[in-house]
Amino acid sequence: MTDRIEVLAVVGLPEVRPGDDLAALIAGAADLVEGDVVVVTQKVVSKAEDRLVDIDPEAGHRPLVERESVRILRRRGDLVIAETEHGFVCANAGVDLSNVEAGQAALLPVDSDRSARRIRDALRHRFSVNVAVVVSDTFGRPWRRGVTDVAIGCAGLRPVVDLRGTTDALGRELQVTEVAVVDEIAAAAELVMGKAAGVPVAVVRGIDPLWFGDGSVVDDVVRSPDEDLFR
Amino acid sequence: MTDRIEVLAVVGLPEVRPGDDLAALIAGAADLVEGDVVVVTQKVVSKAEDRLVDIDPEAGHRPLVERESVRILRRRGDLVIAETEHGFVCANAGVDLSNVEAGQAALLPVDSDRSARRIRDALRHRFSVNVAVVVSDTFGRPWRRGVTDVAIGCAGLRPVVDLRGTTDALGRELQVTEVAVVDEIAAAAELVMGKAAGVPVAVVRGIDPLWFGDGSVVDDVVRSPDEDLFR
Repeated sequence: MTDRIEVLAVVGLPEVRPGDDLAALIAGAADLVEGDVVVVTQKVVSKAEDRLVDIDPEAGHRPLVERESVRILRRRGDLVIAETEHGFVCANAGVDLSNVEAGQAALLPVDSDRSARRIRDALRHRFSVNVAVVVSDTFGRPWRRGVTDVAIGCAGLRPVVDLRGTTDALGRELQVTEVAVVDEIAAAAELVMGKAAGVPVAVVRGIDPLWFGDGSVVDDVVRSPDEDLFR
Repeated sequence: MTDRIEVLAVVGLPEVRPGDDLAALIAGAADLVEGDVVVVTQKVVSKAEDRLVDIDPEAGHRPLVERESVRILRRRGDLVIAETEHGFVCANAGVDLSNVEAGQAALLPVDSDRSARRIRDALRHRFSVNVAVVVSDTFGRPWRRGVTDVAIGCAGLRPVVDLRGTTDALGRELQVTEVAVVDEIAAAAELVMGKAAGVPVAVVRGIDPLWFGDGSVVDDVVRSPDEDLFR
Protein backbone atom coordinates (compact mmCIF):
# COMPACT_ATOMS: atom_id res chain seq x y z
CA MET A 1 0.00 0.00 0.00
CA THR A 2 1.25 3.39 -0.92
CA ASP A 3 0.06 6.43 0.98
CA ARG A 4 0.91 9.13 -1.54
CA ILE A 5 0.98 9.41 -5.30
CA GLU A 6 1.79 12.30 -7.57
CA VAL A 7 0.35 12.98 -11.00
CA LEU A 8 2.52 15.16 -13.21
CA ALA A 9 1.69 16.66 -16.59
CA VAL A 10 4.48 16.26 -19.13
CA VAL A 11 4.62 19.67 -20.73
CA GLY A 12 6.65 20.87 -23.67
CA LEU A 13 6.06 17.99 -26.06
CA PRO A 14 5.98 19.07 -29.71
CA GLU A 15 2.94 18.39 -31.89
CA VAL A 16 3.25 14.67 -32.67
CA ARG A 17 3.40 13.59 -36.31
CA PRO A 18 3.30 10.24 -38.11
CA GLY A 19 6.55 8.35 -37.66
CA ASP A 20 7.61 10.27 -34.55
CA ASP A 21 9.56 8.40 -31.91
CA LEU A 22 7.21 8.84 -28.95
CA ALA A 23 9.57 7.26 -26.43
CA ALA A 24 12.32 9.71 -27.39
CA LEU A 25 9.93 12.66 -27.17
CA ILE A 26 8.73 11.52 -23.74
CA ALA A 27 12.25 10.83 -22.46
CA GLY A 28 13.26 14.30 -23.61
CA ALA A 29 10.38 16.08 -21.90
CA ALA A 30 9.85 14.08 -18.70
CA ASP A 31 12.14 13.40 -15.79
CA LEU A 32 11.21 9.75 -15.30
CA VAL A 33 12.18 7.56 -12.39
CA GLU A 34 11.89 3.82 -11.86
CA GLY A 35 8.38 2.85 -10.84
CA ASP A 36 6.63 5.65 -12.71
CA VAL A 37 3.61 4.95 -14.85
CA VAL A 38 3.69 6.96 -18.09
CA VAL A 39 0.17 7.60 -19.39
CA VAL A 40 -0.02 8.48 -23.09
CA THR A 41 -3.26 9.46 -24.78
CA GLN A 42 -4.55 7.46 -27.72
CA LYS A 43 -4.46 10.59 -29.84
CA VAL A 44 -0.69 10.91 -29.94
CA VAL A 45 -0.16 7.16 -30.20
CA SER A 46 -2.50 7.06 -33.20
CA LYS A 47 -0.70 10.02 -34.74
CA ALA A 48 2.77 8.56 -34.20
CA GLU A 49 1.59 5.24 -35.64
CA ASP A 50 -0.02 7.05 -38.58
CA ARG A 51 -3.54 5.89 -37.89
CA LEU A 52 -4.78 9.09 -39.55
CA VAL A 53 -7.17 8.61 -42.43
CA ASP A 54 -8.87 11.01 -44.80
CA ILE A 55 -12.59 11.50 -44.41
CA ASP A 56 -14.54 11.16 -47.65
CA PRO A 57 -15.95 14.69 -48.14
CA GLU A 58 -19.27 13.34 -49.41
CA ALA A 59 -19.83 10.36 -47.12
CA GLY A 60 -18.42 11.94 -43.94
CA HIS A 61 -16.97 9.92 -41.09
CA ARG A 62 -19.80 7.39 -40.88
CA PRO A 63 -18.29 4.79 -43.23
CA LEU A 64 -15.15 4.86 -41.08
CA VAL A 65 -17.23 4.17 -37.99
CA GLU A 66 -18.94 1.24 -39.71
CA ARG A 67 -15.60 -0.14 -40.82
CA GLU A 68 -14.09 0.10 -37.34
CA SER A 69 -17.13 -1.57 -35.71
CA VAL A 70 -17.69 -5.26 -35.28
CA ARG A 71 -21.06 -4.56 -33.69
CA ILE A 72 -23.30 -1.55 -33.23
CA LEU A 73 -24.87 -1.51 -29.76
CA ARG A 74 -26.91 1.70 -29.96
CA ARG A 75 -27.62 4.56 -32.34
CA ARG A 76 -29.17 7.90 -31.53
CA GLY A 77 -28.94 10.73 -34.02
CA ASP A 78 -25.30 11.27 -34.82
CA LEU A 79 -24.12 9.08 -31.97
CA VAL A 80 -23.13 5.47 -32.51
CA ILE A 81 -22.06 3.24 -29.60
CA ALA A 82 -20.08 0.41 -31.14
CA GLU A 83 -17.85 -2.46 -30.24
CA THR A 84 -14.43 -2.40 -31.88
CA GLU A 85 -12.47 -5.45 -32.97
CA HIS A 86 -10.43 -5.07 -29.76
CA GLY A 87 -13.63 -5.45 -27.75
CA PHE A 88 -13.84 -1.83 -26.60
CA VAL A 89 -17.35 -0.40 -26.47
CA CYS A 90 -17.24 3.32 -27.17
CA ALA A 91 -18.67 6.19 -29.16
CA ASN A 92 -18.03 6.03 -32.91
CA ALA A 93 -15.89 2.91 -32.50
CA GLY A 94 -13.05 5.19 -31.43
CA VAL A 95 -13.01 7.20 -34.69
CA ASP A 96 -11.87 10.59 -33.46
CA LEU A 97 -12.26 13.93 -35.20
CA SER A 98 -10.95 16.29 -32.51
CA ASN A 99 -7.36 17.47 -32.37
CA VAL A 100 -6.66 16.25 -35.91
CA GLU A 101 -6.53 18.27 -39.11
CA ALA A 102 -9.87 19.08 -40.73
CA GLY A 103 -10.81 16.36 -43.21
CA GLN A 104 -8.99 13.70 -41.24
CA ALA A 105 -9.86 11.27 -38.48
CA ALA A 106 -7.69 9.32 -36.06
CA LEU A 107 -8.44 5.63 -35.69
CA LEU A 108 -7.54 3.63 -32.58
CA PRO A 109 -4.11 1.99 -32.59
CA VAL A 110 -4.22 -1.49 -34.14
CA ASP A 111 -3.03 -3.00 -30.84
CA SER A 112 -2.75 -0.52 -27.97
CA ASP A 113 -1.15 -3.04 -25.64
CA ARG A 114 1.60 -3.48 -28.21
CA SER A 115 1.86 0.31 -28.57
CA ALA A 116 2.36 0.57 -24.80
CA ARG A 117 4.90 -2.26 -24.86
CA ARG A 118 6.91 -0.56 -27.60
CA ILE A 119 7.11 2.69 -25.69
CA ARG A 120 8.01 0.86 -22.49
CA ASP A 121 10.70 -1.23 -24.20
CA ALA A 122 12.22 1.83 -25.85
CA LEU A 123 12.28 3.76 -22.58
CA ARG A 124 13.90 0.81 -20.86
CA HIS A 125 16.48 -0.16 -23.42
CA ARG A 126 17.38 3.15 -25.00
CA PHE A 127 16.78 5.49 -22.08
CA SER A 128 17.49 3.09 -19.20
CA VAL A 129 14.39 3.82 -17.18
CA ASN A 130 12.08 1.07 -15.99
CA VAL A 131 8.53 2.39 -16.13
CA ALA A 132 5.08 1.02 -16.90
CA VAL A 133 3.13 2.54 -19.78
CA VAL A 134 -0.62 3.05 -20.19
CA VAL A 135 -2.36 4.19 -23.37
CA SER A 136 -5.54 6.08 -22.42
CA ASP A 137 -8.65 7.16 -24.26
CA THR A 138 -11.75 9.14 -23.37
CA PHE A 139 -14.92 7.05 -23.17
CA GLY A 140 -18.49 7.74 -22.16
CA ARG A 141 -20.36 5.27 -20.02
CA PRO A 142 -23.96 4.19 -19.49
CA TRP A 143 -26.04 5.60 -16.63
CA ARG A 144 -23.65 8.44 -15.85
CA ARG A 145 -23.07 11.72 -17.63
CA GLY A 146 -19.67 12.92 -18.69
CA VAL A 147 -16.67 11.15 -20.13
CA THR A 148 -13.71 9.77 -18.22
CA ASP A 149 -10.35 8.48 -19.35
CA VAL A 150 -9.82 4.73 -19.32
CA ALA A 151 -6.97 2.51 -20.45
CA ILE A 152 -6.95 0.90 -23.89
CA GLY A 153 -3.45 -0.55 -23.56
CA CYS A 154 -0.75 -1.13 -20.99
CA ALA A 155 2.67 -2.65 -20.48
CA GLY A 156 4.58 -3.49 -17.32
CA LEU A 157 1.45 -3.22 -15.18
CA ARG A 158 -1.17 -5.59 -13.83
CA PRO A 159 -4.31 -3.88 -15.11
CA VAL A 160 -6.69 -5.57 -12.69
CA VAL A 161 -5.44 -6.22 -9.18
CA ASP A 162 -7.23 -9.17 -7.72
CA LEU A 163 -7.83 -8.90 -3.99
CA ARG A 164 -10.40 -11.69 -3.91
CA GLY A 165 -9.87 -13.87 -0.89
CA THR A 166 -7.88 -11.37 1.08
CA THR A 167 -9.66 -10.24 4.22
CA ASP A 168 -11.09 -6.83 4.90
CA ALA A 169 -10.24 -4.71 7.95
CA LEU A 170 -12.72 -6.71 10.05
CA GLY A 171 -11.19 -10.03 9.03
CA ARG A 172 -14.05 -11.07 6.73
CA GLU A 173 -13.51 -12.20 3.18
CA LEU A 174 -13.97 -9.42 0.66
CA GLN A 175 -16.57 -10.03 -2.00
CA VAL A 176 -15.83 -8.11 -5.19
CA THR A 177 -12.37 -6.69 -5.13
CA GLU A 178 -10.90 -7.00 -8.57
CA VAL A 179 -9.88 -3.38 -8.93
CA ALA A 180 -9.20 -2.03 -12.41
CA VAL A 181 -6.25 0.05 -11.29
CA VAL A 182 -5.21 0.67 -14.88
CA ASP A 183 -8.41 2.63 -15.47
CA GLU A 184 -8.02 4.52 -12.21
CA ILE A 185 -4.48 5.46 -13.27
CA ALA A 186 -5.79 6.69 -16.65
CA ALA A 187 -8.48 8.72 -14.87
CA ALA A 188 -5.97 10.24 -12.45
CA ALA A 189 -3.72 11.24 -15.36
CA GLU A 190 -6.57 13.01 -17.09
CA LEU A 191 -6.92 15.37 -14.14
CA VAL A 192 -3.69 17.09 -15.16
CA MET A 193 -4.05 16.82 -18.92
CA GLY A 194 -7.04 19.08 -19.57
CA LYS A 195 -9.07 18.38 -22.67
CA ALA A 196 -8.11 21.45 -24.64
CA ALA A 197 -4.67 22.15 -23.33
CA GLY A 198 -2.84 19.73 -25.55
CA VAL A 199 -0.97 17.84 -22.83
CA PRO A 200 -1.02 14.27 -24.10
CA VAL A 201 1.30 12.61 -21.58
CA ALA A 202 1.30 12.45 -17.78
CA VAL A 203 3.27 10.55 -15.18
CA VAL A 204 1.68 8.79 -12.20
CA ARG A 205 4.36 8.39 -9.56
CA GLY A 206 4.25 6.31 -6.42
CA ILE A 207 1.77 3.50 -7.10
CA ASP A 208 1.96 0.26 -5.16
CA PRO A 209 5.02 -1.69 -6.40
CA LEU A 210 2.94 -4.88 -6.29
CA TRP A 211 0.89 -3.60 -9.22
CA PHE A 212 3.82 -3.80 -11.62
CA GLY A 213 3.96 -6.97 -13.68
CA ASP A 214 2.55 -8.42 -16.85
CA GLY A 215 -0.83 -7.76 -18.29
CA SER A 216 -2.86 -6.54 -21.20
CA VAL A 217 -5.94 -4.35 -21.30
CA VAL A 218 -7.48 -6.37 -24.11
CA ASP A 219 -6.89 -9.70 -22.33
CA ASP A 220 -7.50 -8.64 -18.74
CA VAL A 221 -9.96 -5.74 -18.82
CA VAL A 222 -12.16 -6.26 -21.86
CA ARG A 223 -15.04 -8.46 -20.76
CA SER A 224 -15.87 -11.28 -23.10
CA PRO A 225 -19.43 -11.04 -24.42
CA ASP A 226 -20.43 -14.30 -22.70
CA GLU A 227 -19.64 -12.96 -19.24
CA ASP A 228 -21.09 -9.54 -19.98
CA LEU A 229 -24.61 -8.78 -18.80
CA PHE A 230 -24.93 -5.73 -21.05
CA ARG A 231 -24.12 -6.96 -24.52
CA MET B 1 -4.96 23.93 -15.97
CA THR B 2 -2.94 22.43 -13.25
CA ASP B 3 0.22 20.52 -14.06
CA ARG B 4 0.60 18.55 -10.87
CA ILE B 5 -1.70 16.95 -8.34
CA GLU B 6 -1.02 14.93 -5.24
CA VAL B 7 -3.17 12.17 -3.80
CA LEU B 8 -2.64 11.55 -0.10
CA ALA B 9 -4.05 8.76 2.05
CA VAL B 10 -5.42 9.97 5.36
CA VAL B 11 -4.06 7.43 7.81
CA GLY B 12 -4.74 6.99 11.48
CA LEU B 13 -8.51 7.36 11.48
CA PRO B 14 -10.24 5.23 14.11
CA GLU B 15 -12.86 2.66 13.16
CA VAL B 16 -15.94 4.78 12.40
CA ARG B 17 -19.13 4.10 14.38
CA PRO B 18 -22.72 5.32 14.15
CA GLY B 19 -23.02 8.91 15.31
CA ASP B 20 -19.35 9.72 14.84
CA ASP B 21 -18.46 13.23 13.74
CA LEU B 22 -16.66 12.49 10.48
CA ALA B 23 -15.55 16.07 9.88
CA ALA B 24 -13.87 16.17 13.28
CA LEU B 25 -12.17 12.82 12.69
CA ILE B 26 -10.93 14.00 9.28
CA ALA B 27 -9.78 17.37 10.58
CA GLY B 28 -7.89 15.58 13.33
CA ALA B 29 -6.10 13.16 11.01
CA ALA B 30 -5.47 15.21 7.85
CA ASP B 31 -3.49 18.37 7.32
CA LEU B 32 -5.94 20.06 4.96
CA VAL B 33 -5.30 23.19 2.92
CA GLU B 34 -7.65 25.41 0.95
CA GLY B 35 -8.42 23.90 -2.44
CA ASP B 36 -8.10 20.29 -1.34
CA VAL B 37 -10.70 17.74 -2.31
CA VAL B 38 -11.45 15.34 0.54
CA VAL B 39 -12.65 11.98 -0.74
CA VAL B 40 -14.57 9.89 1.80
CA THR B 41 -15.74 6.37 1.05
CA GLN B 42 -19.41 5.50 1.26
CA LYS B 43 -18.64 2.88 3.86
CA VAL B 44 -17.62 5.30 6.60
CA VAL B 45 -20.32 7.80 5.66
CA SER B 46 -22.93 5.04 5.92
CA LYS B 47 -21.49 3.95 9.26
CA ALA B 48 -21.38 7.48 10.70
CA GLU B 49 -24.96 8.04 9.51
CA ASP B 50 -26.02 4.70 10.98
CA ARG B 51 -27.14 3.18 7.72
CA LEU B 52 -26.28 -0.24 9.15
CA VAL B 53 -29.09 -2.76 9.17
CA ASP B 54 -29.37 -6.30 10.42
CA ILE B 55 -29.60 -9.07 7.87
CA ASP B 56 -32.43 -11.50 8.47
CA PRO B 57 -30.59 -14.79 9.19
CA GLU B 58 -33.12 -16.81 7.21
CA ALA B 59 -33.81 -14.54 4.24
CA GLY B 60 -30.24 -13.26 3.80
CA HIS B 61 -29.44 -9.92 2.20
CA ARG B 62 -31.72 -10.31 -0.82
CA PRO B 63 -34.80 -8.63 0.69
CA LEU B 64 -32.59 -5.62 1.48
CA VAL B 65 -31.46 -5.48 -2.14
CA GLU B 66 -35.05 -5.62 -3.34
CA ARG B 67 -36.05 -2.88 -0.92
CA GLU B 68 -33.20 -0.60 -2.00
CA SER B 69 -33.94 -1.11 -5.71
CA VAL B 70 -36.37 0.86 -7.81
CA ARG B 71 -35.56 -1.30 -10.80
CA ILE B 72 -33.63 -4.50 -11.42
CA LEU B 73 -31.61 -4.28 -14.64
CA ARG B 74 -29.94 -7.69 -14.65
CA ARG B 75 -29.69 -10.81 -12.53
CA ARG B 76 -27.14 -13.58 -12.79
CA GLY B 77 -26.75 -16.07 -9.98
CA ASP B 78 -26.10 -14.15 -6.81
CA LEU B 79 -25.47 -10.89 -8.65
CA VAL B 80 -28.17 -8.26 -9.04
CA ILE B 81 -27.53 -5.06 -11.00
CA ALA B 82 -30.13 -2.59 -9.81
CA GLU B 83 -31.04 1.06 -9.99
CA THR B 84 -31.36 2.77 -6.61
CA GLU B 85 -33.80 5.54 -5.79
CA HIS B 86 -30.93 8.01 -6.30
CA GLY B 87 -30.54 6.75 -9.87
CA PHE B 88 -27.27 4.90 -9.32
CA VAL B 89 -26.93 1.64 -11.22
CA CYS B 90 -24.77 -0.77 -9.26
CA ALA B 91 -24.41 -4.26 -7.85
CA ASN B 92 -26.91 -5.18 -5.12
CA ALA B 93 -28.34 -1.64 -5.15
CA GLY B 94 -25.40 -0.57 -3.02
CA VAL B 95 -26.16 -3.00 -0.17
CA ASP B 96 -22.70 -3.75 1.14
CA LEU B 97 -21.59 -6.67 3.27
CA SER B 98 -17.83 -6.10 3.40
CA ASN B 99 -16.13 -4.22 6.18
CA VAL B 100 -19.21 -4.38 8.40
CA GLU B 101 -19.91 -6.75 11.28
CA ALA B 102 -21.16 -10.21 10.36
CA GLY B 103 -24.95 -10.22 10.21
CA GLN B 104 -25.11 -6.59 9.18
CA ALA B 105 -25.15 -4.69 5.90
CA ALA B 106 -24.40 -1.06 5.10
CA LEU B 107 -26.93 0.76 2.93
CA LEU B 108 -26.05 3.77 0.80
CA PRO B 109 -26.46 7.16 2.49
CA VAL B 110 -29.98 8.54 2.03
CA ASP B 111 -28.56 11.56 0.18
CA SER B 112 -24.81 11.41 -0.45
CA ASP B 113 -24.66 14.94 -1.84
CA ARG B 114 -26.08 16.14 1.46
CA SER B 115 -23.60 13.93 3.32
CA ALA B 116 -20.77 15.59 1.40
CA ARG B 117 -22.24 19.03 2.06
CA ARG B 118 -22.45 18.40 5.79
CA ILE B 119 -18.82 17.34 5.99
CA ARG B 120 -17.76 20.30 3.88
CA ASP B 121 -19.78 22.77 5.94
CA ALA B 122 -18.40 21.39 9.19
CA LEU B 123 -14.82 21.55 7.93
CA ARG B 124 -15.39 25.11 6.77
CA HIS B 125 -17.22 26.51 9.76
CA ARG B 126 -15.75 24.55 12.64
CA PHE B 127 -12.27 23.88 11.32
CA SER B 128 -11.87 26.94 9.06
CA VAL B 129 -10.67 25.10 5.98
CA ASN B 130 -12.32 25.58 2.61
CA VAL B 131 -12.27 22.23 0.80
CA ALA B 132 -14.51 20.31 -1.55
CA VAL B 133 -15.82 16.91 -0.48
CA VAL B 134 -16.57 13.81 -2.55
CA VAL B 135 -18.29 10.67 -1.28
CA SER B 136 -17.04 7.69 -3.29
CA ASP B 137 -18.20 4.15 -3.81
CA THR B 138 -16.88 1.13 -5.68
CA PHE B 139 -18.92 0.21 -8.76
CA GLY B 140 -18.55 -2.32 -11.51
CA ARG B 141 -19.27 -1.33 -15.10
CA PRO B 142 -20.47 -3.03 -18.26
CA TRP B 143 -18.01 -4.21 -20.88
CA ARG B 144 -14.94 -3.92 -18.68
CA ARG B 145 -13.72 -6.16 -15.88
CA GLY B 146 -12.83 -4.87 -12.47
CA VAL B 147 -14.37 -2.28 -10.24
CA THR B 148 -13.40 1.38 -10.00
CA ASP B 149 -14.33 4.06 -7.52
CA VAL B 150 -16.84 6.68 -8.64
CA ALA B 151 -18.55 9.56 -6.88
CA ILE B 152 -21.99 9.18 -5.32
CA GLY B 153 -22.02 12.63 -3.75
CA CYS B 154 -20.08 15.88 -3.75
CA ALA B 155 -20.06 19.40 -2.36
CA GLY B 156 -18.10 22.46 -3.39
CA LEU B 157 -17.15 20.94 -6.73
CA ARG B 158 -18.50 21.03 -10.27
CA PRO B 159 -18.85 17.30 -10.91
CA VAL B 160 -18.93 17.57 -14.69
CA VAL B 161 -16.75 20.20 -16.32
CA ASP B 162 -18.27 21.28 -19.58
CA LEU B 163 -15.71 22.14 -22.21
CA ARG B 164 -18.18 22.01 -25.08
CA GLY B 165 -17.59 24.83 -27.50
CA THR B 166 -14.04 25.53 -26.42
CA THR B 167 -11.52 24.85 -29.14
CA ASP B 168 -8.97 22.09 -29.23
CA ALA B 169 -5.23 22.62 -29.76
CA LEU B 170 -5.78 22.88 -33.52
CA GLY B 171 -8.46 25.53 -33.16
CA ARG B 172 -11.37 23.24 -34.00
CA GLU B 173 -14.44 22.89 -31.85
CA LEU B 174 -14.29 19.92 -29.54
CA GLN B 175 -17.09 17.44 -29.83
CA VAL B 176 -17.72 15.57 -26.59
CA THR B 177 -15.92 17.18 -23.71
CA GLU B 178 -18.12 17.06 -20.68
CA VAL B 179 -15.57 15.49 -18.37
CA ALA B 180 -16.81 13.81 -15.19
CA VAL B 181 -13.93 15.10 -13.09
CA VAL B 182 -15.69 14.07 -9.88
CA ASP B 183 -15.42 10.42 -10.91
CA GLU B 184 -11.79 10.84 -11.96
CA ILE B 185 -11.06 12.35 -8.54
CA ALA B 186 -12.76 9.39 -6.83
CA ALA B 187 -10.72 6.99 -8.98
CA ALA B 188 -7.46 8.79 -8.20
CA ALA B 189 -8.23 8.66 -4.48
CA GLU B 190 -8.78 4.92 -4.62
CA LEU B 191 -5.19 4.43 -5.79
CA VAL B 192 -3.96 5.28 -2.30
CA MET B 193 -6.77 3.72 -0.29
CA GLY B 194 -6.24 0.04 -0.99
CA LYS B 195 -9.27 -2.19 -0.72
CA ALA B 196 -8.29 -4.10 2.39
CA ALA B 197 -6.12 -1.58 4.15
CA GLY B 198 -8.92 0.28 5.85
CA VAL B 199 -8.02 3.77 4.64
CA PRO B 200 -11.41 5.35 4.01
CA VAL B 201 -10.35 8.95 3.33
CA ALA B 202 -7.91 10.53 0.88
CA VAL B 203 -7.05 14.05 -0.17
CA VAL B 204 -6.63 15.13 -3.79
CA ARG B 205 -4.55 18.29 -3.78
CA GLY B 206 -3.93 20.67 -6.66
CA ILE B 207 -6.90 20.32 -8.98
CA ASP B 208 -7.85 23.12 -11.33
CA PRO B 209 -9.38 25.96 -9.24
CA LEU B 210 -12.01 26.43 -11.96
CA TRP B 211 -13.53 23.09 -11.00
CA PHE B 212 -14.65 24.32 -7.60
CA GLY B 213 -18.23 25.53 -7.45
CA ASP B 214 -21.71 24.16 -6.97
CA GLY B 215 -22.97 20.83 -8.09
CA SER B 216 -24.50 17.53 -7.15
CA VAL B 217 -23.71 14.03 -8.30
CA VAL B 218 -27.38 13.04 -8.38
CA ASP B 219 -28.39 16.13 -10.39
CA ASP B 220 -25.35 16.46 -12.64
CA VAL B 221 -23.91 12.97 -13.10
CA VAL B 222 -26.82 10.56 -12.90
CA ARG B 223 -28.27 10.26 -16.38
CA SER B 224 -32.02 10.45 -16.56
CA PRO B 225 -33.54 7.29 -18.06
CA ASP B 226 -34.90 9.20 -21.08
CA GLU B 227 -31.43 10.31 -22.19
CA ASP B 228 -29.85 6.96 -21.37
CA LEU B 229 -29.30 4.49 -24.19
CA PHE B 230 -28.72 1.59 -21.79
CA ARG B 231 -31.78 1.55 -19.56
